[in-house]
This record gives sequence, C-alpha cells and structure tokens, in this order.
Amino acid sequence: MELAKLKITKRQTLAGQLYGQILEQIVSNTLGQGERLPSEHGLATAFGVSRPVVREALKKLQEDGLVEARRGVGTFVRRRPPEKLIEFATVDSVAGLMRAMEARVTVEHATARLAALRAGPKDLARIESALQRLEETMAVRTPSVDSDYQFHLAIAAASGNEVFVDMLECTRDAIERGIDVAQKLTREGTQARLNLVMREHRQIFEAIHAGDAEAAGVCMSHHLLQARTRITDHAESA
Amino acid sequence: MELAKLKITKRQTLAGQLYGQILEQIVSNTLGQGERLPSEHGLATAFGVSRPVVREALKKLQEDGLVEARRGVGTFVRRRPPEKLIEFATVDSVAGLMRAMEARVTVEHATARLAALRAGPKDLARIESALQRLEETMAVRTPSVDSDYQFHLAIAAASGNEVFVDMLECTRDAIERGIDVAQKLTREGTQARLNLVMREHRQIFEAIHAGDAEAAGVCMSHHLLQARTRITDHAESA
Amino acid sequence: MELAKLKITKRQTLAGQLYGQILEQIVSNTLGQGERLPSEHGLATAFGVSRPVVREALKKLQEDGLVEARRGVGTFVRRRPPEKLIEFATVDSVAGLMRAMEARVTVEHATARLAALRAGPKDLARIESALQRLEETMAVRTPSVDSDYQFHLAIAAASGNEVFVDMLECTRDAIERGIDVAQKLTREGTQARLNLVMREHRQIFEAIHAGDAEAAGVCMSHHLLQARTRITDHAESA
Amino acid sequence: MELAKLKITKRQTLAGQLYGQILEQIVSNTLGQGERLPSEHGLATAFGVSRPVVREALKKLQEDGLVEARRGVGTFVRRRPPEKLIEFATVDSVAGLMRAMEARVTVEHATARLAALRAGPKDLARIESALQRLEETMAVRTPSVDSDYQFHLAIAAASGNEVFVDMLECTRDAIERGIDVAQKLTREGTQARLNLVMREHRQIFEAIHAGDAEAAGVCMSHHLLQARTRITDHAESA
Repeated sequence: MELAKLKITKRQTLAGQLYGQILEQIVSNTLGQGERLPSEHGLATAFGVSRPVVREALKKLQEDGLVEARRGVGTFVRRRPPEKLIEFATVDSVAGLMRAMEARVTVEHATARLAALRAGPKDLARIESALQRLEETMAVRTPSVDSDYQFHLAIAAASGNEVFVDMLECTRDAIERGIDVAQKLTREGTQARLNLVMREHRQIFEAIHAGDAEAAGVCMSHHLLQARTRITDHAESA
Repeated sequence: MELAKLKITKRQTLAGQLYGQILEQIVSNTLGQGERLPSEHGLATAFGVSRPVVREALKKLQEDGLVEARRGVGTFVRRRPPEKLIEFATVDSVAGLMRAMEARVTVEHATARLAALRAGPKDLARIESALQRLEETMAVRTPSVDSDYQFHLAIAAASGNEVFVDMLECTRDAIERGIDVAQKLTREGTQARLNLVMREHRQIFEAIHAGDAEAAGVCMSHHLLQARTRITDHAESA
Repeated sequence: MELAKLKITKRQTLAGQLYGQILEQIVSNTLGQGERLPSEHGLATAFGVSRPVVREALKKLQEDGLVEARRGVGTFVRRRPPEKLIEFATVDSVAGLMRAMEARVTVEHATARLAALRAGPKDLARIESALQRLEETMAVRTPSVDSDYQFHLAIAAASGNEVFVDMLECTRDAIERGIDVAQKLTREGTQARLNLVMREHRQIFEAIHAGDAEAAGVCMSHHLLQARTRITDHAESA
Repeated sequence: MELAKLKITKRQTLAGQLYGQILEQIVSNTLGQGERLPSEHGLATAFGVSRPVVREALKKLQEDGLVEARRGVGTFVRRRPPEKLIEFATVDSVAGLMRAMEARVTVEHATARLAALRAGPKDLARIESALQRLEETMAVRTPSVDSDYQFHLAIAAASGNEVFVDMLECTRDAIERGIDVAQKLTREGTQARLNLVMREHRQIFEAIHAGDAEAAGVCMSHHLLQARTRITDHAESA
C-alpha cells in the first residue's frame, strides 16, 4: 500500500475520506484481496488522523463487506470491487450507495411482502408495466434507471401503505444513483449476467402476482443483496 | 348499526371516509365487539358507494386489526378501540396513524438491531439522554412527544445509516401524531400501564447498550406493536 | 372436474386424502390453471365428507400455493405442478414434503446466518467438501441426495448450536424425500435449470465463507423457496 | 480472578469446561461486572489449554451475552447471572440451555406466526387450557414445567405443521430443563416479576387468538429472549 498517494481534502468527514482512499487502493489492486491492511496505528500515522477516525472508516468498510477484521490478527481485504466502480461512481459516494442499499433491503422486503397480500389488479398492472419497460431496455443492453425505480416504487404503492412510498421518494436520489451504478456494471458483464438480473426482477413480480408473501419478500431481499454484491465483488460482476 | 347516522363528505377518498365512519360506530359501541357488519352489498347500498369502495375500506379495517373476515360467513368486529381515541384523533386520521405504525415496525426493528451492533459512546449517551427526559415527563404523567421522537431518532442515528434517519424525518409528522395519541391514551390508563410503557423503552435501550442485536430488534418491534394495540384495543389501554 | 374419479381410502385423514385427490386433478390438468374448483358444498357432497374436512383440505392446498381463495368468488387453481411430480412422489406424500420445506425455511435461514458468524476453518472445509461432491454429481446429471443433505447438515453444525443439528436429524427422512423429488424434477429440466440450482448452493457457501450473515440467511431462504416452487410449478421446473 | 480455583475434568470438551469455570467466577462475583478477563494468552497458560480452546470458550460466552470483546482492548464481563443459577443448573449445563433457547426463538417465532393464521377452535382451546393450568400454578408460586411446555407444544400443533411439533419433541429434554431453571429463578423474584411472566404468556395467546401473525411472532420472540435475560442477568431476575 503506497501511503504517499493518499491525500486528505475537506469535502467530507475524515472517516469518509479515509474510506474512499482505502477503497481506491482496493479497487486498483494496490491492496490485493486477502492482503492485510496496515495497523490502526500505522494508518493513523500515515494519514495524520486520530485512531477513532481510522476505526470508523474500517468499521464502515467492514459493514460494506470490503474488509474483515480477524480478532488479534488484523484487518484484511475481503472483496475487490470491479475496477469500473470508481469510474461509474466517485470514490466519495460509494459508502452512501451502500447505506442506501442497506436501507432498501429492510424497507423493500416489507413492501414486497405486503404487495403480495394486498395488490389489486391496477397495482399488478402498474408493476408489470414498469417491469416490461425495464426488460425491453435491458434486452438491448441499455437498462433504464427510471423503469427500475418505477418498478420498485409501484411495489411500494401496492403495499397499500403510503408511508413506504414517501420513504422511497425522500431517498430517491441515492436509490437512483445506486441503480445507475449497478446497471452500468451489469452492462459491462456478460449476457448471462444480464439475464440473471432480469430473472431476479421477474421472480419478484411473479411471487407478488401469486400472492406468495414469503417468497416475494425473500426474492426482493435476495435481488438487492445480489445487486450489492455485484457492486462490491469484481468476481460477481463478470 | 344505524346507517342513517353516516354521511359522506368530500375531504378524503370514499374508502377512507367509509373506514372512518365504520370506525366511529365501533368506538361508540354501536357496532359491538363480535358483532357482524352488514354484507358488502348492504354497506354499498346504505352508503351509496360501489362495492370496490366497500371492499377497500373493509380491507384496511382488517389490516388494522379492527375487523376480521370469516370465509363464507361475513365480517365481524374484532377489537373496540378506547372511546377516547376519537377524541384524541380525528376519525379520518386513524388509518394514517396505523400505516405510520406499520412502517415504523419495519424500519425501527432494523435501526435498533444495527444500533446494538454499531452505537458508539456518543450515540449511547444521546439515546439515554432522550430516554431520561421521556422518563422524567412520564413520571409526572405528562409524557413529552418530542422526547419520545428524539429517543427513536437517536437510535436511527446510532445505526450508522443516515438513510434511516432521513426516512424517519420525512415521515416525522405522522410519527409524532401517532406518539401524541398513544401518550394521551396511556395517560388515561393506570400507573401500572404507564410503568409498562416506561419499561418497554428502557428495555430497548438496555439491549442496545448490551450490544444484543436480536433482543434490541425484538424489543423495538414489541414496543411498537404494543403501542398499536393500545390504540386499537380498549381492554389493553386500561 | 370429473368427481366420479375420486375415491376415499382409509390410509390417511380424510382431509389428507382429499388434498391428494384434488392435487392429482390439478397435476393431470383435469382442473386447469385458473379454473374454479367446485364450491365447498359441492366438494363435500361429491366426496361424501363434511364441510370442515373440505375446508381443511383447501386450506392446506392454499398454504402450499396450489390454489387461491378469492373472497366471495371461490377457490381457483393457482399453480400446476410438473406432471412428473406424482410419478416421483405418491400423491399422499406431497403435503408432507411441503410441510418439511416450510420448516426448513425457518430453521435453515437461522443456521446459515449463524454459520456466517461462527464457522471456523474446519466447518468451512466440511461445507465445501459436501458442496463439491454435490456439484460433481450434478455435473453428470445424477445429483446425490446424501451430498445435498450433508451440505445442509454441515451448515447446521457450523452454526455452533447442536440443537439445530438435532432438529434436522430428527426430520431427516422427510427432508431427504423432499430433496429426492426436487432433484429428480431438476434432472428432467434443462441444463440451464441445473446450473441455476448449482449456483444457488454455491452462493450460500460463498456468503457463509465471506462472513455475510444477512446474505447467507437470505440466499438459504431463497434456495429453499425456489426448490418449493420447482416442485409446485411446472413452468419453473422447465 | 483466582486462577488456582480452576480445575479441568474429563466429562466435557475442554472449551465447555472452561466456559463453565469462567461462568462460575462471574456468578460468584470473583470476576465482577465490567471487569476485564485475563488475556487469551493468560487464560491459556493458567488452564494449560491451547489458545483455540480459549477462543472457543470466550466465543460461546460472548454469544450468550455474558462477556463482550472490545477490539484491541480485551474481553469484559457484560452480565452477571443470578447467584441461584448455578444452584438450579450445573455449571456444565448452562451453555446447553442457552443453545436450546436460541433454537426456540427461531422455531417458535414461526409456530406462533403460523398459529395466528391457521389455528382452529380446537387448537385455541388446547392452547388456552395449557395457559390456564400454567397461570393457576403460577398464582400459587409453583409454576408447572409441564404446563409451560404444553403451552408451547400446543402452539406448534396449531401451526398446522407436524414437522415443527417433531422438532420441539426431539429437543424436549433440553427445553424442559431450560423452563425448569427459568421458573425456579422467577419464583425467587418478586410477585411483580411473576406477573410479568404471566403477562408475556397471555399476550402470546391473545395475539394468536386475534389472528395477528406479526404480533404473535414478536410476542413469542420477546418472551423467549426475556427468559434468556432472566437466566443471564441477575438485575433482570429480581
């Protein structure tokens, strides 16, 4: 890890900047998969920041599945994101995308479950229509961010609970940026990868349509966690 | 059920109005616990609305635990809310309070779990400080809506995920109105009831403080579902 | 629906027999997808059983996703299982397989989560070894029931909680019969289908290996619910 | 921590024995709440065991909420169980009781949910009858282990899934031993404590009776996690 390359700017919290700079080293393979990071003390000294700042940055990287702490041994690189990640998203924005994804897994597991129990014919038509537009754009390898968002929003509306709709709408920017990055990474991958992503969406719709609440909730969680893995693991985005 | 008493106004969806008017009959005991509601056809005729409108109103009453449908038999009153409910909240607003509660159970189960895993000393101090203010105001039987909201907001902040904070903040009005109604009903009850509500809050804090994610999530869900029951069941609010 | 074909034997509860006979009509397409079943009264008369028996059989068919009740309209065929189902399993045993699957979703969601948190190197080696044997036998289209069971048992052992191991072992017969049917149906399908099933297993292992509890739990639930769908939906088993 | 007091016998795994002996020191207040345990190296040397054995014992103590690891600082006593615990249960058996409790939280959350959706009048009568017997014996401060177990078993039967019943029955010994210890500790506490435990059981029944699946599941999890806390935390058992 060439510490000399790292520089602290003033746009973000120190921990946020440190997160981004370590992320950059992982993506660029300067810090290889399985490699040990410098100690807390080493990182604090190298960056001229306090150890609490180092700990906060490492904690977030661990929460996002990028590094892992082994007790009494140190912190190691767990996953290397695809190289294109930091072309499609600024290094500073990745932690935010991960937080939005985490919140979506919670909220949309519930909306999919409830939609399976409560969706009426109009709700189903709206979900399917967004799905069809998404599939058409994916078929020609130019997936539409708006169609993807509208698919998830229509499911929230079908939950019969406007509060869930408000919750998605008030975090729409972060959600759409996450969709945008995930779609761009998917387009870099094989056709088989694209087919899997289409299949994930279709399964959610089918479980809701069949009124199968448990399957709808699990298919939604599975889809969002897979999307997160495609963002953080270069092997999965192939 | 004296249908003549019911009147349709223009402020809300028809289904929303019908929900409110049936609720009023249940609270006032015009429709007693265990009693069968008129048939879909009967309700549609009496109110001069279509059957889909009747079905939507009944569905929401069922989702909120106020009535239950028995297949091939009809729809029955399941729970009678405390009489004071429609003094503390307008009949029109109750369905909205229930929706906010449902969304909170989902989101705050997650924030409490994550707070148990991620809260630092400052987060814990902020949660405990809001709890203490809430307990002080409850001890003199004037619970503070703001302290209650701040307690839940501090837990969301301790989850380390700003998106959850945004989700609570953007539905703050509905959350605070729900807290207000629940607190007013609690004040009508016995001291034993007040003690139980204090205990629920304290248990959430203790599970987070102990780093016990599963207990923190379950204590939070339990607290919010109990609050919902206190709003919808006169027996529980005693 | 040709009611004359149905006959009551004495081996099972009446509701269990009725379940099996309606299932047979659905699989054989005598009762087509989307078609309405006779009324409760009609079924009771045709089979010479009481209405509670009819209701119990319909309830179980609904729980298993095979029929759906639409309020005030009737009960309809929701999914048609693959024709081979009643070649690979006796009609009488299908309800039991579904119940075992339901219990597995609950228990194994927990074992996969805990394994991600607690598995040591030996646990991981044991899970991977069972996975490799399963993949080798799937590659030549003769998946091994024992390897599949051992994969799931090794995950339970890795949860560090022997009680979960006991729970799987004491229902091993039902679990292995379910695996056997699912595998036989998978072998009837395309190579793409077989690859998907292999992928589901591999994802569970990878999430456990990465220490990602949430993903491990969700991948496990998703895998088991997909297996259930492959048993009950001829379209999904293609 | 007076290490000289500790002795290794041959009845159990080394990690299991070490767990029991550290537990004994915590219960007896030799190791006080908040106090730091000796280092891994220190424990390994003192007991003449390998560090992996020490790590396994500490991991189980942490999973059971008795100690907590603070990264880079050490392991600390988190909760002190009531002194009577090691009178009512052998030191060797406590880890097993905790594992049974963990499995029950998973399985019985599901059985309570499903019972709320599926219980018929006979199921409800059976659950209520066991509850009444339990309440009668608790009222005279001699709670019946069998009634408590039968209450939980009747809920599993009401789930309509025999596999869950089998899972409880095949771990019945461990479950009953856990109930026995929890009840004995409850009897040591105040009448207020006893009333709370009765209330927890009654709430589960009421949620199942009301057909409220979410509340039934959460009330069950909450009850079992509270029971676990009463076993591991002397403050909660007062």
